[in-house]
Amino acid sequence: MPGKLKKSVSMSVIRRLPRYYRFTGELIEQGIVRISSGELAKRMAVTASQIRQDLNCFGGFGQQGYGYNLVELREEIGKILGVDQSYKTVLIGAGNLGAAIAAGMNFKKYGCELIGVFDSDPNKHGKKVAGFKIQGLEALGEFCKREAPDMAVLCTPKSAVHELADALISYGVKAFWNFGHYDLSLTHKDILVENVHLGDSIMTLTYEIRNN
Amino acid sequence: MPGKLKKSVSMSVIRRLPRYYRFTGELIEQGIVRISSGELAKRMAVTASQIRQDLNCFGGFGQQGYGYNLVELREEIGKILGVDQSYKTVLIGAGNLGAAIAAGMNFKKYGCELIGVFDSDPNKHGKKVAGFKIQGLEALGEFCKREAPDMAVLCTPKSAVHELADALISYGVKAFWNFGHYDLSLTHKDILVENVHLGDSIMTLTYEIRNN
Repeated sequence: MPGKLKKSVSMSVIRRLPRYYRFTGELIEQGIVRISSGELAKRMAVTASQIRQDLNCFGGFGQQGYGYNLVELREEIGKILGVDQSYKTVLIGAGNLGAAIAAGMNFKKYGCELIGVFDSDPNKHGKKVAGFKIQGLEALGEFCKREAPDMAVLCTPKSAVHELADALISYGVKAFWNFGHYDLSLTHKDILVENVHLGDSIMTLTYEIRNN
Repeated sequence: MPGKLKKSVSMSVIRRLPRYYRFTGELIEQGIVRISSGELAKRMAVTASQIRQDLNCFGGFGQQGYGYNLVELREEIGKILGVDQSYKTVLIGAGNLGAAIAAGMNFKKYGCELIGVFDSDPNKHGKKVAGFKIQGLEALGEFCKREAPDMAVLCTPKSAVHELADALISYGVKAFWNFGHYDLSLTHKDILVENVHLGDSIMTLTYEIRNN
């Protein structure tokens, strides 16, 4: 069982953890109770030694000759990922994508709780998205002081991200799930940023089409 | 100028290319005409030698003592990424996220052309998304035979991805931009897949919040 996490787990290991979490969930759904690192590796198309090394970063979970108890493994990975938490989350930018994320993303499943939706467009104010009345940005400061959100989802155009992040950081928000095509971590230090740059993603695919 | 691409450019280099494309665009918008690899590196928070190495994979662009001509560099990176192409694209799954992608994504900017939107839900058929009448999946085979799309955007639940990919591959589609939480490349070989797993992404952020 992992206790306090070791420091300095590399980002590449961390980025693989959600996939372990997904896969163990699928295997449990299939009625599988335990699995060897070799069998898990085969199903995930990675090497058994990578799985063992990755999980050892968090204290190790398997038992020699028995393999992994899937329910336990999944639960522990979930705790490491924070899905047992309830991080208060605000979403800024209720355009097409923002509204889709607000309405379609199962935040609770990932340890988050959506508590408010904001947009700069007065025509949207008072309309509902995912059960939340869209509020204006002028209400954001007061809201953050009262609710102290842990995380902000930024679904705004690139041009708005910089200023919004300034404001949110001054309100105490420290983590950003950023869909704006702006490299927040370049200008804002000491915050946690996870970028979803859809344009970068589709260009990786067009590269592959062009060069295959 | 890069001619025919060298083989075996690593995925990590390819994944950095869109960022170069974005950054050079921003610098040009700021009126900058040329830049040294050192200055570009500083702005992108990477090392100059990484920039030189990355771009050398494609034949090199800079000129000793002059640096990079930004307009030329961006144009060449764009060509390598295929943004000067017009890959025919179908989108399957017109739920919250699919509709947002169809309506909000500037496909043309990334060398793609949306040509049709499909959904399994009969209640959606005939309704319009991004100017396209949503069609039923039963029309997909005929449509693909006629239009020969290069790429499919999958915005369907995980459970539908496997079967849909089977069908689309049999219709000749070879590239998939996959928003379904299903590892398509594990079961379908010889296709190009770019995954956007939003759940994995948000869990990377909750990990950071939990462990910082």
